[in-house]
Amino acid sequence: MIDAKIIDIKVQDIRFPTSLHYHGSDAMHTDPDYSCAYVTIITDTEYEGYGLTFTLGRGTEIVVLACKSLFKIIKNKKTTKIFSNFALYWRKLTCDTQLRWIGPEKGVIHLATAAIVNALWDLWARIENKPVWKLLTDMSPKELVSTIDFRYIKSVVTKEQAIQILENNMKQKEHQESELQKKGFPAYTTQVGWLGYSDEQVVDLCNSSLERGFTAFKIKVGQNLDDDIRRCEIVRRVIGPEKKLMLDANQVWEIDEAVEWIDRLAIYKPFWVEEPTSPDDSWGHGQIRERLKEKVKLATGEMCANRVMFRQFLEMGIDYCQIDAARIGGINEILAVYFMAHIKNLPICPHAGGVGLCEMVQHLQMWDYICLSQTNEDRMIEYVDQQHEQFEDPVCIKNACYMPPSRPGYSTKLKDECILEYAYPEGNYWKLNKSE
Amino acid sequence: MIDAKIIDIKVQDIRFPTSLHYHGSDAMHTDPDYSCAYVTIITDTEYEGYGLTFTLGRGTEIVVLACKSLFKIIKNKKTTKIFSNFALYWRKLTCDTQLRWIGPEKGVIHLATAAIVNALWDLWARIENKPVWKLLTDMSPKELVSTIDFRYIKSVVTKEQAIQILENNMKQKEHQESELQKKGFPAYTTQVGWLGYSDEQVVDLCNSSLERGFTAFKIKVGQNLDDDIRRCEIVRRVIGPEKKLMLDANQVWEIDEAVEWIDRLAIYKPFWVEEPTSPDDSWGHGQIRERLKEKVKLATGEMCANRVMFRQFLEMGIDYCQIDAARIGGINEILAVYFMAHIKNLPICPHAGGVGLCEMVQHLQMWDYICLSQTNEDRMIEYVDQQHEQFEDPVCIKNACYMPPSRPGYSTKLKDECILEYAYPEGNYWKLNKSE
Repeated sequence: MIDAKIIDIKVQDIRFPTSLHYHGSDAMHTDPDYSCAYVTIITDTEYEGYGLTFTLGRGTEIVVLACKSLFKIIKNKKTTKIFSNFALYWRKLTCDTQLRWIGPEKGVIHLATAAIVNALWDLWARIENKPVWKLLTDMSPKELVSTIDFRYIKSVVTKEQAIQILENNMKQKEHQESELQKKGFPAYTTQVGWLGYSDEQVVDLCNSSLERGFTAFKIKVGQNLDDDIRRCEIVRRVIGPEKKLMLDANQVWEIDEAVEWIDRLAIYKPFWVEEPTSPDDSWGHGQIRERLKEKVKLATGEMCANRVMFRQFLEMGIDYCQIDAARIGGINEILAVYFMAHIKNLPICPHAGGVGLCEMVQHLQMWDYICLSQTNEDRMIEYVDQQHEQFEDPVCIKNACYMPPSRPGYSTKLKDECILEYAYPEGNYWKLNKSE
Repeated sequence: MIDAKIIDIKVQDIRFPTSLHYHGSDAMHTDPDYSCAYVTIITDTEYEGYGLTFTLGRGTEIVVLACKSLFKIIKNKKTTKIFSNFALYWRKLTCDTQLRWIGPEKGVIHLATAAIVNALWDLWARIENKPVWKLLTDMSPKELVSTIDFRYIKSVVTKEQAIQILENNMKQKEHQESELQKKGFPAYTTQVGWLGYSDEQVVDLCNSSLERGFTAFKIKVGQNLDDDIRRCEIVRRVIGPEKKLMLDANQVWEIDEAVEWIDRLAIYKPFWVEEPTSPDDSWGHGQIRERLKEKVKLATGEMCANRVMFRQFLEMGIDYCQIDAARIGGINEILAVYFMAHIKNLPICPHAGGVGLCEMVQHLQMWDYICLSQTNEDRMIEYVDQQHEQFEDPVCIKNACYMPPSRPGYSTKLKDECILEYAYPEGNYWKLNKSE
């Protein structure tokens, strides 16, 4: 195998002016400029790794600096050394004895960890000449599990248990992969009901999504109850009573308020209600879930800081687990969450949209479908049709399903012309349209 | 009242080379360089505000940048407008619609919020010509409570409840303040048992602390059980069976491991065991606490990310609540935690040490003693004799008690010569001793 030496990193602040048209607007984030801290890991070979973490505009510069500060931990290391001891290197990145204090394993420093770790996986997959889902799928159970740091979660899952689960599933893998190649993995759309959209836009978008084969639709709620009721009625009228409707409150409610508000929306039969309150409050989610348990199910995860927080949500607070590819510390930590959710028997429905999140999570969910849960029952990947055109290997949706990528890597390489246009503040777009 | 306009900010990276002698070394942070991101808020008057957040060396540069990015939220604002709507401005700082994504309310961005908010309180106290504890104490209940953002904690405490509690305590205030002026507030020392210290050092430090009147002693544990047993025996032999011994594991254990390890140390009758596992795992703390409930009490908080996390620890996981002055979003949010702890009947014993933490937390605990809990029973402030000489208004310890500061502000102004020496990397010390 090629043994590349990591010699440098390039970190770029890329911002798309999405706030102009309220794409992505929700009750908490009213004017997001979808952005990313974009990492290129440079080696002494022809291979490079491309990784990113998703941000909303202001603050991306802070994550960029954090990526640069973390880089020295992997600088001058050989790829074979990192990939054969990936759990150890992941620990080094998240547990530097000084940097750790400004997290630990949360916020800016963990977003930066995600960008770097994702770039390392992209690099690995490029060296192996496989898409990441296939790299993961082809690993032996022992190899795959060796990438995971089990610190703080050993009472729910150990290394040995994880290996055993994968080994038991080996015989089913081939069948799963062939099904996936035929049918892809089901997606749902979030594009029909951003908070800033008019009722007419919502109707049009529901209709066009139905035409494209979607059977599950998510809208934003939480700013005004009357608006939410009206929008739920509109969407239900267009999509009918059988298709799935999900509601996303983006963290706006207190515990009691969530119970009362959701209670009013329960007649629209939501498949889940997402982020009813603080993304840190697993205990509070547990309270809401208990009080509404006959009526609705809860989903949360896009802002869950790390595997320890996920563990608590799995114990107390949620019915659907929404991993995010760029908030917790990259694939290594996400795999840990997949194993915990599997053991707790909770389906994972990844958070996506933003910048590159769809591109990344598809690989993870496909690995899960082939190797771990081996099912798509009650499982869907979020889909938003934004920023895909900026990537060299954008997602491919057919009949409302994600089709497995075939190109090597994690699908996270931005086109050169995207960087020229949207690098902040020096890209062509931002030079012409000064912000702030 | 003086109405100053905030016109600029200076943010400095200050690092002390404490790793040279293992001061501050624990099981997780083996070589800390005690540091801070140091904020000076500049107004159009003679008044300035000085605030900081504590860091461990590497990574301080990231927090410095975050302070600069946050500054524009208060730039050109008038102080009377901020201080009369402080909860609103606190919300603006923590809930910027784009910056929020890289937290929310945790890690780098929340440490930066703390530095800025602390500087605002210092500025306010300087304008009022009072130390912060006295500024807080002299406020009407309504004024004080108006500084708190109750988002996500209303099911444990509301604005009205908080005002009512303070009003009920009014008649006792004068007595409490006079007691405080006479006796000060009890401290405990953490200086006797950093992990890097030899047994001889531990014995010497216990003896000298006893001579200075200390009755409570904290040592670090968690790296090696035999070492911990030996050190507990040594300390108990020197301080005797009656005085308080606290054990601090700095987050190193799994849940089961914590139970087994603590079980072995329980015979040394620790007053509390601190940070047994991940600082995010309130549920896990709850498990450990339940399994050891006849034997030891637990304390946690110095790495608790925000009031929502504290709320969960108060519900599930701890017996002693250790607020930190520079990790959650400054005084406004800390006051919220004091109210929640009061309602849940848990004593607060602030985390201190580091850089400026002793200087800050004394003000808060003194306010609590005068206005809220109105007791020092089961309550102590951590004390470490480090970096105080760098401040213009260092803590004053008499007979192992913190004496109330009399100079205006939050005691957080560094001496000019300290900055000249330890600013990183341009200070005289770092120019002579290149690191990294």
